[in-house]
Amino acid sequence: MKNQTIFFPKPVYISETATIAGPKESEGPLQKYFHYCLKDDLLKQKSHEHAEIKMHTAVINQLLQRAHLSAKDIDCAFAGDLLDEIISSNFTMRETDIPFLGVYNACATLAESYILASSMISTGLIKNAVCSVSSHFATAERQYRYPLELGSQRTPLAQWTVTAAAASYLTSEKSDIKITCGTVGKVTDYGVSDANDMGGVMAPAALSTLLAHLKATGTSPTDYDLILTGDLGHSGSRLLVKLAEKEGVTLGTNYTDCGILVYNREGQDVGQGGSGACCCGLVFNSYIFKKMKEGRLKKVLFMPTGALLSKTSSLQGESIPAICHAVSIEVE
Amino acid sequence: MKNQTIFFPKPVYISETATIAGPKESEGPLQKYFHYCLKDDLLKQKSHEHAEIKMHTAVINQLLQRAHLSAKDIDCAFAGDLLDEIISSNFTMRETDIPFLGVYNACATLAESYILASSMISTGLIKNAVCSVSSHFATAERQYRYPLELGSQRTPLAQWTVTAAAASYLTSEKSDIKITCGTVGKVTDYGVSDANDMGGVMAPAALSTLLAHLKATGTSPTDYDLILTGDLGHSGSRLLVKLAEKEGVTLGTNYTDCGILVYNREGQDVGQGGSGACCCGLVFNSYIFKKMKEGRLKKVLFMPTGALLSKTSSLQGESIPAICHAVSIEVE
Repeated sequence: MKNQTIFFPKPVYISETATIAGPKESEGPLQKYFHYCLKDDLLKQKSHEHAEIKMHTAVINQLLQRAHLSAKDIDCAFAGDLLDEIISSNFTMRETDIPFLGVYNACATLAESYILASSMISTGLIKNAVCSVSSHFATAERQYRYPLELGSQRTPLAQWTVTAAAASYLTSEKSDIKITCGTVGKVTDYGVSDANDMGGVMAPAALSTLLAHLKATGTSPTDYDLILTGDLGHSGSRLLVKLAEKEGVTLGTNYTDCGILVYNREGQDVGQGGSGACCCGLVFNSYIFKKMKEGRLKKVLFMPTGALLSKTSSLQGESIPAICHAVSIEVE
Repeated sequence: MKNQTIFFPKPVYISETATIAGPKESEGPLQKYFHYCLKDDLLKQKSHEHAEIKMHTAVINQLLQRAHLSAKDIDCAFAGDLLDEIISSNFTMRETDIPFLGVYNACATLAESYILASSMISTGLIKNAVCSVSSHFATAERQYRYPLELGSQRTPLAQWTVTAAAASYLTSEKSDIKITCGTVGKVTDYGVSDANDMGGVMAPAALSTLLAHLKATGTSPTDYDLILTGDLGHSGSRLLVKLAEKEGVTLGTNYTDCGILVYNREGQDVGQGGSGACCCGLVFNSYIFKKMKEGRLKKVLFMPTGALLSKTSSLQGESIPAICHAVSIEVE
């Protein structure tokens, strides 16, 4: 490890992905890239938590189908989500026969799982893995903020938690798209305590990891076709650009954010854009993955960001720590 | 990976440990082995959550002190706990300068972190890591069951969540005690929905991982000086012995459980014994680690078990999934 960065000795391939998008996400600009679009967000379940679990379970089954594999072919599953005690992942995993390692770094969880799975695959300890995440607007809102039934007014800096599940199949078997290195983030806390301002909370974490990654790899932002943060949204992304500028790093037109890409800001009433553990999963595993497959993007720095709060820490008046992990993903 | 089991190509050493024990734990039979004993469980904080975070932060500082290291010497921290969104770990990590990967498999979290850290150290991706967990009776009771202020009567199968924090320093540098392999558990669910009967919930998970581990390693229970489950407690341990017997595996006098060891059942009013993410951490990192250092135990199969519920899943009437990871730890 050099400057927080792990260079994988052999490339690890993302050979297949699957996504399930909620109804609102399916009305957004990326609809045609999603593998499956939901018409309602309750999936005929008795609670939104059950719906999220059903969605998470379904996306893993779809991934295995698309990769022509069954559960017994998979060495390990790395999964996480935003629900207390990651129950979406836990209850999904009881439906499969795959050894399970639960991970949690909020909306940075997918990058964390990529780094862990790649570490084990690249060194031959395991031959493959499934990495998956889910999030759901209704479960997240009532857990972190207010039950939807209250009809609370949204604040100007609020983002919209993406309802989706995404899964990736990582393997040592050669295919088109590979993970070459990963930068493990440190926890930052700049004192923001507004549980609606996720972009403001997470931008400093993204900066910290970006600087560490560029230093470790000896690269500059222009070396990437795309630098893609997880879910800073419009305000958080602008903040990151300004913070980076102060450090002498220019984020230009090759920088954007999954929270910006996932919705039409005009007309979808999503405030600063998308957020949630699966915001980055939904965008990367569909739209970006396809662009890479087509060779239209060759080198992507994928930087999911996470806000490490809980309802309890918010109610106790705590400020919000954040983290960001970066993964360099390239066309072979 | 063979039969859920990862064999580490080079041994990974647990070269130092640290433990902080709560007041009740410090009145138990293992008191003289703990590195630090608390006199009160609030640590002059304004909430028990803050107390747990303070304890978790302190145990990492103590570990670094004992190992004559500073945060900048550590490549990576793997941490988890029972609080929603693992805030004990998150808020601890904002106080350090160590790259952080958050993990969650309930009370099996310490074994999960040993497997992940060992995978990365053994293959040279990182040189060392800190693995840490915490749990607190007051925070866990009010989160998973009832606030203590209610004075609810405890059920016959209830266990007592251990108030403690534990941290381990894992490194590729040779010392006395090494991790040789780890078995990643699958999620089991036998339909138990009683959030007080943790032993009943987790015993089948322990059985599943035990059988997988013995098969993968070609060992039998008598090959180990000690087989040590995490926190099945008295009733859960008896259940595991019976379940194993049915599978033709005899767990004899070399089998016990951290939840049994940590308290005096007579006089401490702890029901079926200890539980919590740090039950196994407190016992292993003090008592067992010392016995291994002295050569009185040479080969230990360490099997922390976790119940993957949340308050929400319990209130929604769900049964409780469980998991167990096994780590084989030997004197060099």
